[in-house]
Amino acid sequence: MLINGDRLKRHLEELAEIGKIGETGVCRLAHSKEDRQAVEVVKGWMEEAGLTAKIDGFGNLIGRVEGTEPDKPILVLGSHIDSQPYGGRFDGTAGALGAIEVVHSMRENGITPARSIEVICFSDEEGSRFNKGIFGVRGLAGMLEEGELERKDKQGITRREALKEFGVEPDLSGSPAYQKGDIEAFLELHIEQGPVLEQKNRPVGIVSGISGPIWLTVTLEGFAGHAGSVPMPMRQDALVGASEIIRKFDELVKTEGSETTVGTVGSMQVFPNSRNIIAEKVEFTVDLRDIDLEARTKLEEKLYKIIEETSASFDLKSEIKEDTRSEPRYCADWIKDIMKEEEEKLGLDAPTLMSGPFHDALIMSYICDYGMIFVRCEKGISHNPLEFAEMEDIEKGVGLLYATAVRISQS
Amino acid sequence: MLINGDRLKRHLEELAEIGKIGETGVCRLAHSKEDRQAVEVVKGWMEEAGLTAKIDGFGNLIGRVEGTEPDKPILVLGSHIDSQPYGGRFDGTAGALGAIEVVHSMRENGITPARSIEVICFSDEEGSRFNKGIFGVRGLAGMLEEGELERKDKQGITRREALKEFGVEPDLSGSPAYQKGDIEAFLELHIEQGPVLEQKNRPVGIVSGISGPIWLTVTLEGFAGHAGSVPMPMRQDALVGASEIIRKFDELVKTEGSETTVGTVGSMQVFPNSRNIIAEKVEFTVDLRDIDLEARTKLEEKLYKIIEETSASFDLKSEIKEDTRSEPRYCADWIKDIMKEEEEKLGLDAPTLMSGPFHDALIMSYICDYGMIFVRCEKGISHNPLEFAEMEDIEKGVGLLYATAVRISQS
Repeated sequence: MLINGDRLKRHLEELAEIGKIGETGVCRLAHSKEDRQAVEVVKGWMEEAGLTAKIDGFGNLIGRVEGTEPDKPILVLGSHIDSQPYGGRFDGTAGALGAIEVVHSMRENGITPARSIEVICFSDEEGSRFNKGIFGVRGLAGMLEEGELERKDKQGITRREALKEFGVEPDLSGSPAYQKGDIEAFLELHIEQGPVLEQKNRPVGIVSGISGPIWLTVTLEGFAGHAGSVPMPMRQDALVGASEIIRKFDELVKTEGSETTVGTVGSMQVFPNSRNIIAEKVEFTVDLRDIDLEARTKLEEKLYKIIEETSASFDLKSEIKEDTRSEPRYCADWIKDIMKEEEEKLGLDAPTLMSGPFHDALIMSYICDYGMIFVRCEKGISHNPLEFAEMEDIEKGVGLLYATAVRISQS
Repeated sequence: MLINGDRLKRHLEELAEIGKIGETGVCRLAHSKEDRQAVEVVKGWMEEAGLTAKIDGFGNLIGRVEGTEPDKPILVLGSHIDSQPYGGRFDGTAGALGAIEVVHSMRENGITPARSIEVICFSDEEGSRFNKGIFGVRGLAGMLEEGELERKDKQGITRREALKEFGVEPDLSGSPAYQKGDIEAFLELHIEQGPVLEQKNRPVGIVSGISGPIWLTVTLEGFAGHAGSVPMPMRQDALVGASEIIRKFDELVKTEGSETTVGTVGSMQVFPNSRNIIAEKVEFTVDLRDIDLEARTKLEEKLYKIIEETSASFDLKSEIKEDTRSEPRYCADWIKDIMKEEEEKLGLDAPTLMSGPFHDALIMSYICDYGMIFVRCEKGISHNPLEFAEMEDIEKGVGLLYATAVRISQS
């Protein structure tokens, strides 16, 4: 064993007690009391691992161990320890505690890195509380937006107030914390949050990149009327139109998308949403992702055509609002190559797969090369107390993280 | 003019002031303070019309004028004066005040009926408050269900308490108030609440019957997952399945239904309804109506097949719950014949059309023959402050109600 699996398991279990809900769930909202408590505990583990730890002006917990060649660009490892309001115990934590374990084991194994290493537990990755996430990492990368400290949670508390309550003096002057060239590589381990590794029956995978989503909100407007009295040919039923679009979009992605294209309508609102009134207005979201940008663009154009033609044929007005447009961000080939060599030595038979969900690594990709390791999780369930990953799989993933980190830190 | 249009207009306008919302809307929930105030005012107009008025143990306002042949089955006219929470000023009131106007005008025109006449403002037709309507008329007809006085509104007030607050001692011993044979005919005038008369450019129509709805709730269950990470072939997306069913159902009714068939999915809930999570569960309502019971049954069977096949092809579990199954209730031919003769004399050129929505008349149909008159309303809008009918059209409709009532009351 390259790492100490028992210690890692104990840390994961102890952390899961903070903000525990039910038997297996966790609620550690960003900057909350539970989040603060978790940061304190994890800071202690960093120190035990030989890291010098601090909490910065964005709420990030950062530990550092100096290398023998302090002028070289550093190696950064990390993930997050905040959670969804109704979340699981592995999302973020496996990677954050795994990174600490890597440094701890290096020390115990007598390995002194050439490059300095930082381990970061990024603040507010999830974004549930202020409806905007990957906050801490955007602070470090200089990618915060105007007025971000004034965003309010459901109780009306601003992020600025929440950070103060958390014990941090919000300090935007620290953004960006890194310049291009400061970091040699960023490595993140995360549970897959998808079913591909389980389906392939493999414990660990190497990530090819994070596919950026296009997020749209589509609104269709027809005309309400009594379900019993408006003859079928006179109807302008927004829900029938929406149904036609959703069905055709699904078919489009399934038949014309690449293997990595995914398209989802996950949220829908119907007005007035009464069983005996024809739907006047329907609003639904579109989530379209692909690691292949060209393939995504082609499907997006066809979706617009479907919306336009369907609206016309059902006599509806339509409106498309673009909420987010992210580009795919690819993992660095040289990091993937190292991972590939190391996983072969470890006999993991790790396949390469893309990441649909985003991660802190998405933002890190704008300031340095990055690589990611996925760990199999049960049925792909995440953001749910039912989230589960076998300890054995996590150990294998952290083993690969260790081997990769040792290679890069000594290069 | 057979009736006094100015008085009718004044009454409609005065009643619209009670519970007025916005410029043209009305909120007079059943048994509320506003409802009580309305009943008091309308009771006064009944008395001015020569009716002896009382409020019964269900909250119905009943006025009676004795005929010269008191042993004959009576004629009943009426509708309701309660409203939707966000309702209009013509739904129910046109027929209720129109009925009073008929009796008032008969007296002024020196017509003494042979049959006694009762005018009823039925209590709680709308059903919004206790989620179950046509209460007063079901009380009169002996069609109340177990525990109906214990139903609660959103504030937790039971119907029993609400009726007491309204000033009535709930008295179920008065149900049924009529036996078969007591009533010769029931006549109700109502705004159409649909677009057919407007489309045909006619002020008034004769109703052929009330088409009963089948109300179903369909639940589809698939499997949630992250929108970015579950490959398309592995998905069990409940919203895609629901969309396919809704689109096919719409097509089925449009292509295989009769001219009078209407099918609607008006309400839908998506779980967890998050833009980046595949829909795990979708629940939607089905409303299927036809005056032709055989045609309706044929389509219903085909709908079940669509649900079954679609669920299978999208790997979803499905469940169908039957909430309501009403049979069509036809207007009496002899009453329609009288109406037809009278509308021809009045030069109304009234078409015959069915009623999709139900009315108090639906329940009256179980204890006597009935007839209904529809008045054109703008764009078919109802249950909305935008509800609008031209005074001229209402007067024509009440004129036909008058002529029909005179014929029947003297027969």
